[in-house]
Amino acid sequence: MKLPDELFRIAEDIRTMRIRGAGRIARAAASGLAIVAEKYETGDRDELKEAILEAARVLVSTRPTAVSLPNAVRFVVLRGLNAYEAGADIAELREAIKTSAEDFIHNSKTAVERIAEYGARRIRDGDRVMTHCHSTAAVSVLLKAWEQGKRFEVFSTETRPRFQGRITAAILADAGIPVTMIVDSAARFFMESIDAVVVGADAVAANGAVVNKIGTSAIALAAHEARVNFFVAAETYKFSPETMLGTLITIEERDPAEVVDRDYLEQHPNIRVRNPAFDVTPPEYIDIIITEQGVIPPQGALMILREEFGWFTRSNLPDFLRGPPSPAHVTSY
Amino acid sequence: MKLPDELFRIAEDIRTMRIRGAGRIARAAASGLAIVAEKYETGDRDELKEAILEAARVLVSTRPTAVSLPNAVRFVVLRGLNAYEAGADIAELREAIKTSAEDFIHNSKTAVERIAEYGARRIRDGDRVMTHCHSTAAVSVLLKAWEQGKRFEVFSTETRPRFQGRITAAILADAGIPVTMIVDSAARFFMESIDAVVVGADAVAANGAVVNKIGTSAIALAAHEARVNFFVAAETYKFSPETMLGTLITIEERDPAEVVDRDYLEQHPNIRVRNPAFDVTPPEYIDIIITEQGVIPPQGALMILREEFGWFTRSNLPDFLRGPPSPAHVTSY
Amino acid sequence: MKLPDELFRIAEDIRTMRIRGAGRIARAAASGLAIVAEKYETGDRDELKEAILEAARVLVSTRPTAVSLPNAVRFVVLRGLNAYEAGADIAELREAIKTSAEDFIHNSKTAVERIAEYGARRIRDGDRVMTHCHSTAAVSVLLKAWEQGKRFEVFSTETRPRFQGRITAAILADAGIPVTMIVDSAARFFMESIDAVVVGADAVAANGAVVNKIGTSAIALAAHEARVNFFVAAETYKFSPETMLGTLITIEERDPAEVVDRDYLEQHPNIRVRNPAFDVTPPEYIDIIITEQGVIPPQGALMILREEFGWFTRSNLPDFLRGPPSPAHVTSY
Amino acid sequence: MKLPDELFRIAEDIRTMRIRGAGRIARAAASGLAIVAEKYETGDRDELKEAILEAARVLVSTRPTAVSLPNAVRFVVLRGLNAYEAGADIAELREAIKTSAEDFIHNSKTAVERIAEYGARRIRDGDRVMTHCHSTAAVSVLLKAWEQGKRFEVFSTETRPRFQGRITAAILADAGIPVTMIVDSAARFFMESIDAVVVGADAVAANGAVVNKIGTSAIALAAHEARVNFFVAAETYKFSPETMLGTLITIEERDPAEVVDRDYLEQHPNIRVRNPAFDVTPPEYIDIIITEQGVIPPQGALMILREEFGWFTRSNLPDFLRGPPSPAHVTSY
Amino acid sequence: MKLPDELFRIAEDIRTMRIRGAGRIARAAASGLAIVAEKYETGDRDELKEAILEAARVLVSTRPTAVSLPNAVRFVVLRGLNAYEAGADIAELREAIKTSAEDFIHNSKTAVERIAEYGARRIRDGDRVMTHCHSTAAVSVLLKAWEQGKRFEVFSTETRPRFQGRITAAILADAGIPVTMIVDSAARFFMESIDAVVVGADAVAANGAVVNKIGTSAIALAAHEARVNFFVAAETYKFSPETMLGTLITIEERDPAEVVDRDYLEQHPNIRVRNPAFDVTPPEYIDIIITEQGVIPPQGALMILREEFGWFTRSNLPDFLRGPPSPAHVTSY
Amino acid sequence: MKLPDELFRIAEDIRTMRIRGAGRIARAAASGLAIVAEKYETGDRDELKEAILEAARVLVSTRPTAVSLPNAVRFVVLRGLNAYEAGADIAELREAIKTSAEDFIHNSKTAVERIAEYGARRIRDGDRVMTHCHSTAAVSVLLKAWEQGKRFEVFSTETRPRFQGRITAAILADAGIPVTMIVDSAARFFMESIDAVVVGADAVAANGAVVNKIGTSAIALAAHEARVNFFVAAETYKFSPETMLGTLITIEERDPAEVVDRDYLEQHPNIRVRNPAFDVTPPEYIDIIITEQGVIPPQGALMILREEFGWFTRSNLPDFLRGPPSPAHVTSY
Repeated sequence: MKLPDELFRIAEDIRTMRIRGAGRIARAAASGLAIVAEKYETGDRDELKEAILEAARVLVSTRPTAVSLPNAVRFVVLRGLNAYEAGADIAELREAIKTSAEDFIHNSKTAVERIAEYGARRIRDGDRVMTHCHSTAAVSVLLKAWEQGKRFEVFSTETRPRFQGRITAAILADAGIPVTMIVDSAARFFMESIDAVVVGADAVAANGAVVNKIGTSAIALAAHEARVNFFVAAETYKFSPETMLGTLITIEERDPAEVVDRDYLEQHPNIRVRNPAFDVTPPEYIDIIITEQGVIPPQGALMILREEFGWFTRSNLPDFLRGPPSPAHVTSY
Repeated sequence: MKLPDELFRIAEDIRTMRIRGAGRIARAAASGLAIVAEKYETGDRDELKEAILEAARVLVSTRPTAVSLPNAVRFVVLRGLNAYEAGADIAELREAIKTSAEDFIHNSKTAVERIAEYGARRIRDGDRVMTHCHSTAAVSVLLKAWEQGKRFEVFSTETRPRFQGRITAAILADAGIPVTMIVDSAARFFMESIDAVVVGADAVAANGAVVNKIGTSAIALAAHEARVNFFVAAETYKFSPETMLGTLITIEERDPAEVVDRDYLEQHPNIRVRNPAFDVTPPEYIDIIITEQGVIPPQGALMILREEFGWFTRSNLPDFLRGPPSPAHVTSY
Repeated sequence: MKLPDELFRIAEDIRTMRIRGAGRIARAAASGLAIVAEKYETGDRDELKEAILEAARVLVSTRPTAVSLPNAVRFVVLRGLNAYEAGADIAELREAIKTSAEDFIHNSKTAVERIAEYGARRIRDGDRVMTHCHSTAAVSVLLKAWEQGKRFEVFSTETRPRFQGRITAAILADAGIPVTMIVDSAARFFMESIDAVVVGADAVAANGAVVNKIGTSAIALAAHEARVNFFVAAETYKFSPETMLGTLITIEERDPAEVVDRDYLEQHPNIRVRNPAFDVTPPEYIDIIITEQGVIPPQGALMILREEFGWFTRSNLPDFLRGPPSPAHVTSY
Repeated sequence: MKLPDELFRIAEDIRTMRIRGAGRIARAAASGLAIVAEKYETGDRDELKEAILEAARVLVSTRPTAVSLPNAVRFVVLRGLNAYEAGADIAELREAIKTSAEDFIHNSKTAVERIAEYGARRIRDGDRVMTHCHSTAAVSVLLKAWEQGKRFEVFSTETRPRFQGRITAAILADAGIPVTMIVDSAARFFMESIDAVVVGADAVAANGAVVNKIGTSAIALAAHEARVNFFVAAETYKFSPETMLGTLITIEERDPAEVVDRDYLEQHPNIRVRNPAFDVTPPEYIDIIITEQGVIPPQGALMILREEFGWFTRSNLPDFLRGPPSPAHVTSY
Repeated sequence: MKLPDELFRIAEDIRTMRIRGAGRIARAAASGLAIVAEKYETGDRDELKEAILEAARVLVSTRPTAVSLPNAVRFVVLRGLNAYEAGADIAELREAIKTSAEDFIHNSKTAVERIAEYGARRIRDGDRVMTHCHSTAAVSVLLKAWEQGKRFEVFSTETRPRFQGRITAAILADAGIPVTMIVDSAARFFMESIDAVVVGADAVAANGAVVNKIGTSAIALAAHEARVNFFVAAETYKFSPETMLGTLITIEERDPAEVVDRDYLEQHPNIRVRNPAFDVTPPEYIDIIITEQGVIPPQGALMILREEFGWFTRSNLPDFLRGPPSPAHVTSY
Repeated sequence: MKLPDELFRIAEDIRTMRIRGAGRIARAAASGLAIVAEKYETGDRDELKEAILEAARVLVSTRPTAVSLPNAVRFVVLRGLNAYEAGADIAELREAIKTSAEDFIHNSKTAVERIAEYGARRIRDGDRVMTHCHSTAAVSVLLKAWEQGKRFEVFSTETRPRFQGRITAAILADAGIPVTMIVDSAARFFMESIDAVVVGADAVAANGAVVNKIGTSAIALAAHEARVNFFVAAETYKFSPETMLGTLITIEERDPAEVVDRDYLEQHPNIRVRNPAFDVTPPEYIDIIITEQGVIPPQGALMILREEFGWFTRSNLPDFLRGPPSPAHVTSY
């Protein structure tokens, strides 16, 4: 089986983080499947099905702990398999997959717009809003509110170790929003003057717990301590269907060199680095999750999961798209 | 009045942070007064007294928000004034001041040893201990426990923006202690596996609140959330007598360039940086404060203050050593 | 277009608070639409539709921050529009609207009966129950339990600034229930001897937060502090569908003269009065919401909203019945 | 009407606790109805229906405060009545009831297997897990995780007054799991070293509160205090549909002789014993409930109840299977 | 024994609340004793001693639940008895008592000045400060800060049932401070925008609990919930020495007519009124107590009590000045 | 050196728990020293001193984790050494020790009386009081309140594994107090109807933490959760001076056979028993500690320790009476 080179390029770009961000990764994966559907050379519908499944496997393996990536792949593959089982001929099968991929991509983009619209309603004139890391959904909420003429300030953490907060700050500031940048550990210091916190999400679990950039849960805790609202902006394809069946979301650990340079570690052999990319914010510290399906309390995550992924347990998906990922690194919650 | 050049060098070294750390600054200030007592050329005890007061003023002005610095100066000046008022001749006055300075320096050094001894009793075999920033007192507790043969692990934050945690990690690791370095915002992530937190203090207030490196209070909050003991190691000259009379401890704000480079800020005029050096940990998140006078609950700070600084309100100190510092920057709690 | 005078009388009575209470207002609005359907003189079904929409606009504008009022209007108008779009002739259209209005009124009345039945099961012999303000639903729960032979005591706050607690106390006492009246600020003092709190609601948000008479949230907080159950009795037409899309419920601010007389304010120009009519009780302080659809945890509000108002986002309602109300005064949560 | 002796034997065994455990009792009740369906001698379908209802009454009365027992009876009777109303002849009616009973029994057994599978995913290598009392579902989770090769330790309370913890400990230890037994009141002492708590349930209420063996709620509180995950393993037939309508779950009080022997009480007439069999763990101390339908947050209980028992309020069941049980003893929450 | 009429007038004015406020009552009592010392006609020092004790009895009985009143009487009587026992002649005894009374009055007045000075240091430019009821000490703190040029806003509750908040608001507003008046039950609503709460005290117990106007503890709870500082301004003669020996502070209950008029109660015989004048704020909700001896954490109250009232348990005071007051009404904590 | 046989009998009785309870053990130890002082045959004051020290060593070694025992020994030995160093001859030395022992015993007995008196003031008519285990001090508080005519109920836990609660219940019931006995794990179930908890203490640490019978901290936690007052009755000789210097109080672990019989453990080799005798209640769950020196908040423990044991750090005691005990078993807090 010879899958198109473009698929492997996309897979490689995801693996090496040239393509970054849960939404962009998910859309890239969907487009990869569309490319296979379009370009894979065969006249045999069985072979095309196998090619699609193989492509799915390749894509999913690039980031084994991601949530939005397999959700995108499931979205497309499931519709393809349904067409296949309904007896589609090869042209129909190609079409079904391409359309599904386009649907996913379209939905993903309009999801952010809706989240911006719903979330902007929670920003008030005069507010001081804190954010953490860089999230397209969270930033869209703030930009939308600013466009609507609301005037507020943003406190943006720098977000160690990769300083994504600097990107967030720059985008907001370039739109005219006054931004104050602080080190991550100053979040509690400034919390007493904050009116709301808005962050994104990498994954949402069945109990409403939110997986997001390391440090999010500490900010949520400080917000909770100070009775400050804590909002999560998350498209529904970030909700993890596996967690309905007990699977824990795996927390990726990243390269120590993001934290200190290798020389330091070589000089001090008794020092090791732990560099988890994400942490888990428990539902009791989250006021609402803003999705494109509407605003929900974290405990409503299960309802969203059942609506969006109800097919998950009983579907005809192959095991690698259904089973829980093998827990590679640290797991939490 | 021509004060010795060495005094001004010491003052300059404190101002420019060539001399750093609350303990070292305090001892340098005491030695500065001793130098004036020794070298100031006069035969007139009144003039010497004035010189000492002028030197005190110079030293105190170098770091107007410090707590240990004026405490050191008060310790020496108070004893000098007492000798003066008791009718000491000029030789006796020089001697009184030099002896007081030596006493302060000696006490300061033995204080750390005692804190190490008392604190080490709270470290247990198999513990996982978290620390933050670089504190001589906190590090001494850990080194002492290790010397006693206890075997434990330390989690050290990197401590943005100046990465003092790397110094802490290196010292502990070089002594053979296994150290794990983490970014500051990962403290809550690892807290569930931590047995105790040990940090130092820049100042302790009359109600037991502790001023320490930015981020300390967020770690204390996460420790409290997870029922993990939180220990502060603090010499009593870090206790702030002004707070007995309601004065707030001023939180120093430092150069934005510690957080992002100036280019970034010039490119984004809507972004400003807030860089408080310290935050305030409320007493309810602190289990004990380990002082050279023994282990106290945070609410015992007032008792220590009254014992050590009972003379404060009724003393013959000049105003600049008694009054509250003018609040220059952000104040908190 | 000449709408019937009776409609304007109803609208005026709502605006001036001659008609008060979320339930009564909602039923009055429904009956107003029925009157228009019955009496508006036209032979043209298009014109009747427009008249109904105009009447809806008139009614909704009387209390722009209410939740039950637009819900009642939506209930009737939606069914009217559905009939219109299904091709109803003018007689059928009149009938559809009248029947819908009757249905709403009937449902509203039986809702209170069911709430009374379900809620009474939570009252136990010997209980001491606290209530706040005057709520038909909450009072019905207590009266029902008393009718069933349970013997308990009620603590009723006076409910500043309008003293509605005196009405509640009188109704309960006249039914034979022993009532203790207290000032609002004594609620925490007595909470240690209370077994349950029962209050009504003006609105329920998608995350389970409850908007009710000012002071409710402080009582809920004190109940939570003392591990006392906190029950909210609320018909489902008080649930706010807009909040599913992020809209904040607007908190009405009322006349300062309810708090102090105007003379006092004129004498003291530096004094202003803030008089919010409601506050927001967060879901974590609420044990259950008793609805006519059954007892739910506050996080179940979203489920009720989706069942009862699932049509909201995709309906053919005109904008003024779909969009969020413009935030006029203070908003919260 | 002469019901078969075997039915009365089953009823007697349930009453005297020769048959124990919510699952076993429920399955025994279902099989009792199957026996009546099979053996009751009549040719009249009306009479058979009455016999089944009478048998249901007998079974339900054996443990008037149970939840799983009436749920089992409802499951079978409801299907029988549906067949009856659909015009089934006597053979079809017998068959319908027998099949329903078998279905219930089968579902109940596979439910435990699924719970084991889902729950085992939450146990991690190296964990220290606490459990309380003896629950088949909770034990199955631990055995399953052990079978999967995970290696962990269990802390098992002894569970006064009947020491069911000794059974749990023996089962787990016999499977090779290292078990530490502690007295119930030591649970908080050991909690600081525990990673997760897993318990079963006797009943689950509409707000997610869990009724389980006395002492469960204190362990949940201590887990919450120490930020330790608290898991409940519960088949959905333990969810109480009555609680959707406000009914309180009655807490059974048992024989004082379980606590002290009668001699002691006779010697000390001023001493009485209170011996509640269960307590109520509020939802805020529960992280997840593991059901055979998947993992839910406690606030998801209402969703499960509506799916599984949606028919409850509108069904054609006789009153004794619909109404709330009369509160006989202590009731709580 | 014929005590001077002026004494009885003072006693009567205290009893009927013509003299009000803990400070004014205490000073009036001290001056009453001075009048007896000056005017009681006798040449016999034993008789004078008895007259003073009788006067003390009269004064203390006027408000049996007060704390500052017996403290004032003890202050004067103790010094009188000491002089008596040291063998003072009648002139010396008269002088000792008069001087003690003057000392008490002087101390009481300067105490407020010092509290104002210390407390004002905690008010910052731009703050929004909430206060409750009318307290001379709390108001002095705010006026002092305003005099120092700080610019801030005050939120003042109206303070049912007697509306003392209107007095507070008027005093502050007349000094130029912008004041917002709210009903008591709106305190939590506005708390999210408040920076500090300052209240007075009627009594302070040995464990740091503060007795103050009904409603204070609910505001403290709401401040604690929102991480807002809560300050109590209290002269040390409001500290209750009896509480060191376990005695509870009695909470006075006042006339129902303060809450509703008598007609209402006569119309509704099932309604009674409970009107406690004070409540008890537990120490964990108080950040600092500002006394004339300095700022203390609530747990420092015991230290103050021992310093100021160390003589209490071992003194030669008559029983009515030493024993705990008989608990007349509701008691709490 | 031949110490009297009676000393060894006392030591043996303490070791084997024939003498039990912190107070009785302490008094027995003091009397043991008095016996040595009286009976040890020598004419040499140096030899007598050595004999006393040897006896002290014997006594202290019987229960190496106790706190009251070494405090009793210190009390007597310190006074003996002071006499010795002041040059006492052998008769004076014998007398000094005997008198000190008598003083300790006398103080210990009157301490309980005072605690009863102070504590009884906190019991109110109609209260429901919970207690745990058997504490002479706590029981005395309840008996004293009953003697004063107050009428209340007591809930007594059985106190596994040794059922000391049955002794408590019997003593109280025999005095006429109505007692309800419950299993330990039912404490939270009944807490919602409890007004106060009263327990004793085995040791009190410098930060106010209380070491008492296993299970105490869980009851304190449940009391805190339900806003129920928690009182500890403790003589000051139970305060641990070592904790001022950081030493942890060692928690004794006792025989597994107290929990299950040996057969069970032999049958199940994978089961071990952990049987800690005590746990540690943190100060934030304790309202007051009732000592014979008065009522203190837990944070006042340090003040008591400094007053009663201020000599501890600087005394001439031999090391085995000064140094921290070697941590043998589990240590906590």
